[in-house]
Amino acid sequence: MEIKKVKRSEDYSAWYNNLVKQADLAEHSAVKGCMVIKPYGYAIWEKMQAELDKRFKDTGHQNAYFPLFIPKSFFSKEASHVDGFAKECAVVTHYRLKNGDDGQIVVDEDAKLEEELIVRPTSETIIWNTYRDWIKSHRDLPILVNQWANVVRWEMRTRLFLRTTEFLWQEGHTAHATAEEAIAETKQMLEVYADFAENILAVPVVKGVKTANERFAGALETYCIEGLMQDGKALQMGTSHFLGQNFAKAFDVKYATKENTQEYVWATSWGVSTRLMGALIMSHSDDEGLVLPPNLAPIQVVVVPILGKKEEEKQLVLDKARAITSTLKAKGIAVKLDDRDHVSPGFKFADYELKGVPVRIAIGMRDVQNETVEVARRDTKEKQVMSVVDIDTKIEHLLAAIQVNLFQKALDFRDDHIHVVNNWDEFNHALETKTGFVSAHWDGTTETELKIKELTKATIRCVPLNATAENGVCVLTGNPSTQRVLFAKAY
Amino acid sequence: MEIKKVKRSEDYSAWYNNLVKQADLAEHSAVKGCMVIKPYGYAIWEKMQAELDKRFKDTGHQNAYFPLFIPKSFFSKEASHVDGFAKECAVVTHYRLKNGDDGQIVVDEDAKLEEELIVRPTSETIIWNTYRDWIKSHRDLPILVNQWANVVRWEMRTRLFLRTTEFLWQEGHTAHATAEEAIAETKQMLEVYADFAENILAVPVVKGVKTANERFAGALETYCIEGLMQDGKALQMGTSHFLGQNFAKAFDVKYATKENTQEYVWATSWGVSTRLMGALIMSHSDDEGLVLPPNLAPIQVVVVPILGKKEEEKQLVLDKARAITSTLKAKGIAVKLDDRDHVSPGFKFADYELKGVPVRIAIGMRDVQNETVEVARRDTKEKQVMSVVDIDTKIEHLLAAIQVNLFQKALDFRDDHIHVVNNWDEFNHALETKTGFVSAHWDGTTETELKIKELTKATIRCVPLNATAENGVCVLTGNPSTQRVLFAKAY
Repeated sequence: MEIKKVKRSEDYSAWYNNLVKQADLAEHSAVKGCMVIKPYGYAIWEKMQAELDKRFKDTGHQNAYFPLFIPKSFFSKEASHVDGFAKECAVVTHYRLKNGDDGQIVVDEDAKLEEELIVRPTSETIIWNTYRDWIKSHRDLPILVNQWANVVRWEMRTRLFLRTTEFLWQEGHTAHATAEEAIAETKQMLEVYADFAENILAVPVVKGVKTANERFAGALETYCIEGLMQDGKALQMGTSHFLGQNFAKAFDVKYATKENTQEYVWATSWGVSTRLMGALIMSHSDDEGLVLPPNLAPIQVVVVPILGKKEEEKQLVLDKARAITSTLKAKGIAVKLDDRDHVSPGFKFADYELKGVPVRIAIGMRDVQNETVEVARRDTKEKQVMSVVDIDTKIEHLLAAIQVNLFQKALDFRDDHIHVVNNWDEFNHALETKTGFVSAHWDGTTETELKIKELTKATIRCVPLNATAENGVCVLTGNPSTQRVLFAKAY
Repeated sequence: MEIKKVKRSEDYSAWYNNLVKQADLAEHSAVKGCMVIKPYGYAIWEKMQAELDKRFKDTGHQNAYFPLFIPKSFFSKEASHVDGFAKECAVVTHYRLKNGDDGQIVVDEDAKLEEELIVRPTSETIIWNTYRDWIKSHRDLPILVNQWANVVRWEMRTRLFLRTTEFLWQEGHTAHATAEEAIAETKQMLEVYADFAENILAVPVVKGVKTANERFAGALETYCIEGLMQDGKALQMGTSHFLGQNFAKAFDVKYATKENTQEYVWATSWGVSTRLMGALIMSHSDDEGLVLPPNLAPIQVVVVPILGKKEEEKQLVLDKARAITSTLKAKGIAVKLDDRDHVSPGFKFADYELKGVPVRIAIGMRDVQNETVEVARRDTKEKQVMSVVDIDTKIEHLLAAIQVNLFQKALDFRDDHIHVVNNWDEFNHALETKTGFVSAHWDGTTETELKIKELTKATIRCVPLNATAENGVCVLTGNPSTQRVLFAKAY
């Protein structure tokens, strides 16, 4: 394996692509825009799934599965939804191949579908068509369902994990008797996402609402969590939508109230995707490779025996390495012993750095004699010689400390990259000379939002939920504003 | 909810369809041939996934993810593979919709794909095209990868879980340096499937190999596990294929040996699907509904308080029910307390019977006074009054006993339904008057196999692995045979 390194400072984009491939996370497939998620990358995704799934179940949700295909006509039923998704749909038109005259296989024109099927870009329409049969009475509500699935949105410019034609995600779809309940659900799931992002991914997020222009196609309100990557660009990491009664009306889903009147049902949907892998990589990693928070690392600790040439010493070192490995495993730590003899320790060190393993323990003959090990942290690259007494507890604490440190470092970076500006000159100056979020007053119109985007390429990432009311004037128009919003260039 | 019951003896097929819907397992979707897996059904599938995934990881496999779409040309590369799958493929031909003249949305003919994409019916081709880049040297082998995914095979006649156009499955795809290793892997995964089927699903299986005619398209040998359903029809429950070098040759996947020669790589693939839900249902369930083995039951024990009218007694019963629930939960048992007041105990009893909950505990005022509970088993419908002393341990043992009993009952049924015959009259008589497997000599030719199928609708389910060598003559042709094979009518 040849490790070709690109520095973040030289070419952030090349650094990212390089890292994703070199650390064995994912690669481009033979199908344009679709990726292969490799075993190491998928193991991290599985850990994300497990953490999210646990949180969904703890908040009363159940998983289910709905069809991959959606009849074309379903899309027309919710007007803004079709506008949002029709331009990027994979369309199934036939259901059979046959042998052509020249020996090649061709599409069998006799097997043309009467109605084309869309490969789901998101499942609101097929799910609300199903809910019509599930919901008759207020006793059937709420419905709290989540689906883990693949979805397809035909993207012209793709980027591994960040924007791919097919991606993996979860989509929650809930049905409620009242608007209040649905809004509470929308906000609850935003909190679940924020908790997951900060405590598991170690990525600080701003919770906010999207502007009308950036809303999900079919939603009345879109809540989001926004992260800031190391290059100073923002990344939308998850969204939670209050859909009002739009889909209930489009698919005629009503329920009988306690008073026996018929009411349309209120809806939410919420999702995060393999895009989070991109957020994870771009928040913590460095020029040596991936940096993983211990809570998501498939290998939390690697033990590397430093084997000399003398056979009896080799055995002593190996025995000690095995004993330490067992001790850590018994503590519930995901530990790997790499005792390959034909690969040099130096190569192993570089490889586990590349893969982002949080802690490396090296053991040589001197360590055996001194009852010590050498412990190296991936995040700070600090090394220390440590006594083997209580090594399991010490490593457990170290892993917890690394998790905290990664979050704190990302939080400090993020907080250092929120630039407060008060007029158009300051706004432009900030965007031209700095990276990160720009906190500015905006007059609340889509017209101004689009004009600013056209002039600067910066978009409104969100109206932060925790912002304090503050009277000011829009940086572009000078019209009155009551709250600052966050602008940024974004992925 | 109205429970409309059909007896197995009246109409097995209607009983099955009815049960799948009434027990909230799955339903037909708006898309022809595709199902919706409902939360209760999906919870059982998740338990199957967890058990299988653990076994895959314990045998050294890692999960990964490959694209949903396969370029059409990939199919042509392995000749028998395309023959096997081309006739049942969903084909994506366009990537955009647009607004038509009449206001309806239509397929945008300007967005036609240069090469059509097939929605994967199985992933050998896209995966072996990927493995070409992953495998250079013997050091890169073996590759032991599994994928959890949805696949699509365009079926004309569908049946919930048993045969649907889209289904969920896992597909293992491994690459090896030698034929021996690949064959050992194929057999190992067959054992994993058999262990899972017998110990988790409680369904006894015959392990065997398929005849050439029934082999997977592209395999040199297909191993299988075959179960017998309560109506006496066989069900193929899982397959493990030795693919030889077919896909390595089709996709030019070679490795450098230790001696630095170039060799084609050896392959296996193996899979089980949501079809196992069908096997589970048809093996154990009865006229009252689903019967679940405790190892797969989302709810293992339901506690139903029998609430009288006196408020203080109600509270005593509820307190006792809660205490018992906590005790069982602390033991790691999946227990649910159903303390709904507006639903009668009788209705609850019937509902949990329908849903197949293995154990029901009822607690009334007399039980509170006597320090007892009434325990009902779903499998035998036996009820007993039990002292609450050590109730957690007793219930744990009872769940284990139910698991064993379900397997033993299914095993007895299966063994009672293997009919040994020695000539064509006996063969026909068995098929006409009995259900189940017919064990008979066959001359080993596809011609005879197809002739028998044409005459009787029975197919060769497998050549059992554990059969003893025995000289005999083919029931149809009288030609010599050295081993009996199992015939049956099958799903």
